[in-house]
Amino acid sequence: MPDQKLKVIPLGGLGEIGKNMMILEYADDIVIIDAGLMFPNEEMFGVDLVVPDISYLEKRRHKIKGIVITHGHEDHIGALPYILSRLDLPVYASKLTGGLISVELKQRGLKKAARVNVVHAGSEITLGYFKIEFFSVCHSIPDAMGLVVSTPVGVVVHSGDFKMDFTPVLGDPADLNRLARLGTRGVLLLFSDSTYVELPGYTPSEKVVGDALDRIMAEASGRVIVTTFASLVSRIQQVIDAAARHHRRVFVTGRSMIGIVKMAMETGYLTVPPDILCNFDDVRKLPDNRVVFLTTGSQGEPTSALVRIANGEHRQIHIASGDTVVISATPIPGNEALVNQTIDRLFRQGARVVYDKLTQVHVHGHGSQEELKLLLSLVRPKFFVPVHGEYRHLSLHAKLAETMGIPRDNLFVLEDGDVLELDRDAGKITGHVQSGNVYLSGLLTGNLNDAVLHDRKLLAQDGTVTIVGRVNTRERKLIGRPEIIMQGFIGDGAKKQALLKRGCEAVMSAMDSDGQYWQKKSSIEARMKKSLADFLYHETRRHPVILPVVFEG
Amino acid sequence: MPDQKLKVIPLGGLGEIGKNMMILEYADDIVIIDAGLMFPNEEMFGVDLVVPDISYLEKRRHKIKGIVITHGHEDHIGALPYILSRLDLPVYASKLTGGLISVELKQRGLKKAARVNVVHAGSEITLGYFKIEFFSVCHSIPDAMGLVVSTPVGVVVHSGDFKMDFTPVLGDPADLNRLARLGTRGVLLLFSDSTYVELPGYTPSEKVVGDALDRIMAEASGRVIVTTFASLVSRIQQVIDAAARHHRRVFVTGRSMIGIVKMAMETGYLTVPPDILCNFDDVRKLPDNRVVFLTTGSQGEPTSALVRIANGEHRQIHIASGDTVVISATPIPGNEALVNQTIDRLFRQGARVVYDKLTQVHVHGHGSQEELKLLLSLVRPKFFVPVHGEYRHLSLHAKLAETMGIPRDNLFVLEDGDVLELDRDAGKITGHVQSGNVYLSGLLTGNLNDAVLHDRKLLAQDGTVTIVGRVNTRERKLIGRPEIIMQGFIGDGAKKQALLKRGCEAVMSAMDSDGQYWQKKSSIEARMKKSLADFLYHETRRHPVILPVVFEG
Repeated sequence: MPDQKLKVIPLGGLGEIGKNMMILEYADDIVIIDAGLMFPNEEMFGVDLVVPDISYLEKRRHKIKGIVITHGHEDHIGALPYILSRLDLPVYASKLTGGLISVELKQRGLKKAARVNVVHAGSEITLGYFKIEFFSVCHSIPDAMGLVVSTPVGVVVHSGDFKMDFTPVLGDPADLNRLARLGTRGVLLLFSDSTYVELPGYTPSEKVVGDALDRIMAEASGRVIVTTFASLVSRIQQVIDAAARHHRRVFVTGRSMIGIVKMAMETGYLTVPPDILCNFDDVRKLPDNRVVFLTTGSQGEPTSALVRIANGEHRQIHIASGDTVVISATPIPGNEALVNQTIDRLFRQGARVVYDKLTQVHVHGHGSQEELKLLLSLVRPKFFVPVHGEYRHLSLHAKLAETMGIPRDNLFVLEDGDVLELDRDAGKITGHVQSGNVYLSGLLTGNLNDAVLHDRKLLAQDGTVTIVGRVNTRERKLIGRPEIIMQGFIGDGAKKQALLKRGCEAVMSAMDSDGQYWQKKSSIEARMKKSLADFLYHETRRHPVILPVVFEG
Repeated sequence: MPDQKLKVIPLGGLGEIGKNMMILEYADDIVIIDAGLMFPNEEMFGVDLVVPDISYLEKRRHKIKGIVITHGHEDHIGALPYILSRLDLPVYASKLTGGLISVELKQRGLKKAARVNVVHAGSEITLGYFKIEFFSVCHSIPDAMGLVVSTPVGVVVHSGDFKMDFTPVLGDPADLNRLARLGTRGVLLLFSDSTYVELPGYTPSEKVVGDALDRIMAEASGRVIVTTFASLVSRIQQVIDAAARHHRRVFVTGRSMIGIVKMAMETGYLTVPPDILCNFDDVRKLPDNRVVFLTTGSQGEPTSALVRIANGEHRQIHIASGDTVVISATPIPGNEALVNQTIDRLFRQGARVVYDKLTQVHVHGHGSQEELKLLLSLVRPKFFVPVHGEYRHLSLHAKLAETMGIPRDNLFVLEDGDVLELDRDAGKITGHVQSGNVYLSGLLTGNLNDAVLHDRKLLAQDGTVTIVGRVNTRERKLIGRPEIIMQGFIGDGAKKQALLKRGCEAVMSAMDSDGQYWQKKSSIEARMKKSLADFLYHETRRHPVILPVVFEG
């Protein structure tokens, strides 16, 4: 066994939320933990999805032994279609996670078959120097797992995304005893989920939501429409159970909700009593207080079933007075406006809307401060690397670990691309590798960069003005009037006409025949651009993007 | 006295947050309540500010008797420069509000002198048929007022923005006895603030924040940097008081913070013990635990003092280990990412950052459900119009009023532009007047419209591609190769070169000489545009904005 250091290299999810990806490297072996995507923020114009830059891995493809996935959320599996089309690797995941990966790969059109190996809590696999054991954790999706990775340097524990739910709706609570035994034997390094480190206390159990749904279905005099994340199978179970208790039948709508309910029933993750699910013809025959609609749209996605209902555009479901709509989810940061708009429209149509600000119809899936402390106190790691969070989350989590007795020198607040090298006694950040965002947009995979996005931002700011001029460079003069086209700069009207006319004149009077710029086409264009920009700024105090085109002849 | 109906017409702030403006109209008299602005949302590209469309008022300028302002926040006073440049009207406001209006008018360059009349709690003014009395309310700015408007049809009460703070830091608590007496005599209509109707219980008193600031200043071993809204004078007072108690001196930085501290000291709204404020030379001589910095930047504004500190770009202040930064504010919706980024950068520099998610270092200025109920139960209005909120807030507030015994027929959930007509017995929505957004952007006041903003959105989505072709229409052919320019569409590289080359060829092969389109320049342009759009979509699955230009000759 070579006496080398263990390298820890995050490629996503540290210093930002989403596209989680962590690398463990020892000698000639690399293991990847998770391969997630990130949804674009509002500055990433025209971007469909963001995945991690894997240049580091592409240069070391022969070293990589496999990808281990903790659970089936997009921010942990969503980069697999991108990565598996570039690196041919085995994937290890739990049964439900594997099912979701297959759906993901099919949707995103990965051509070749992926090698997905199903593991379960208690499974042990060996990938080169790494021996990996899986344990159950509770999260807002069933079949989520944490990892115990034995390495030549020591044991590494990865929490995955987790909370300590002692009364989960589906699956087992986290195996605390196993973690405690590990802690006693000695753990080298813990990675732990920092997403909710800002919240004091404990995250409530999923059970709280079941009680709230029960009350709503009991009290509602009319139909109940519930939306949640399609992958939150345990919540779907709660909706079905509450409906059954109150003698309501459930009609499922929205493509991904229908797909996941079907898959979860087939794989045994969802238990549906007979005669609960129904089609829309059945619904029509039922009195309103016997009906539940389960629908997509919890994030206000513009084409989702709930949004079409809210806009009065759904083929089957139209809001009537007496309807209760339950938004059993919180908006993911960035989606607040879409969700609020949907709620407003439902209110306008006369529905009663119940959402997280009013009633606890959602609990999230990440541990709060006391749960994070509990994990730290059980695992008692020598070194600690907080994962999954923006810098403040990682920083606060490291401080929390310090209050639990981990020496400051053994806490590493890493960011994507940092290389942490560990031996049994000490750790050090020794370098930084290429990391960052790869933007996916239509078929333009990898052809967008920050410069393009910056250009789009400028175009959005004040629109664009194109000026086309015919020139005779020998005689050093413009031929006729240049043509100006404005797009997204100013509304039609007298002001626009005046700017077009006077802008043209400003450019013409700037092109005097004795200028140096006549010698080169690019200089003529620069001269036209500057004179028009100056004129427009003087008139409007704005800076549209100006595109000059010069034609000889 | 003519026997007519009272018209209630909101022109801003109902169905959306911000740019508050309400009109009361009776016979030939109009009174305006508040004239606020709204900051642009992320879809309003290039817009500096949004003010209400006042077409309705401009057509009735002879009727308008004046503008009454409830308090000095931008969403209540910020449209005054725009409105007073179009309508010459007297303004009535409290002393501090008047001071803030003067600052606003000067900053936004209103040329002529505005007629601002100072009123105070207990003042009574008569504007045509309307007799208006002012009463104190508590809000997150001193000198905020509600209104009692006596009209020929009955008494109208307007809450302004308010909460029920029985231990305010500055000013008087709301005059509940006055409201109770009014309620006993009979109130026709109540307008009440709906902003925080989603929150159960009571909003905590400002006092809670004072205690938190006290604790932080006592415990911090180093410098304390506090940021808050510059207009939140009571919070500034709390910072100064806490600093004084812990023998710290205060250095004020950031243009608007310096300006408002000066103005508030001069007008007596801020009480500063001697030897508390200091300049930066004094700071250098003090030990760290004797220093407080009071700064702008609570919303992560890119050029504010705190953001410059966070970026290591402030001329005087550089973060050192041991510094504590207190964000004594919440992000206004839309500013979350900027604020989080600032917090992350401060953590990166080694500061401890205390913000609302961790400690109660801010309370907001609006009443929660129990306070709203208290107001309703004191005023006991016959009719109720919830104001200040998106549709769900107004709708929830109306439902709250219904639980307090107001009949459903007497509750009016209005939106901007609705006309509500009231007599002593009944009310009815009788129409809708022109209302909406006027976009201010540089000097382009009123020259932007939704079509321009839509064009900007399209430009941002996939950028723009310009194609310029010389044609000979007589011979029905292109002269040479068209020129294609891409902006914000694709990054430089081989793929871009290939698209330029093959795009050109696609257009050339589409321009066959027997087409109908040769007869008109616009048809030739349309043909070029469509052929290029089809080619680019096929290659990239994206839709850039295509601008065709055709030149004869």
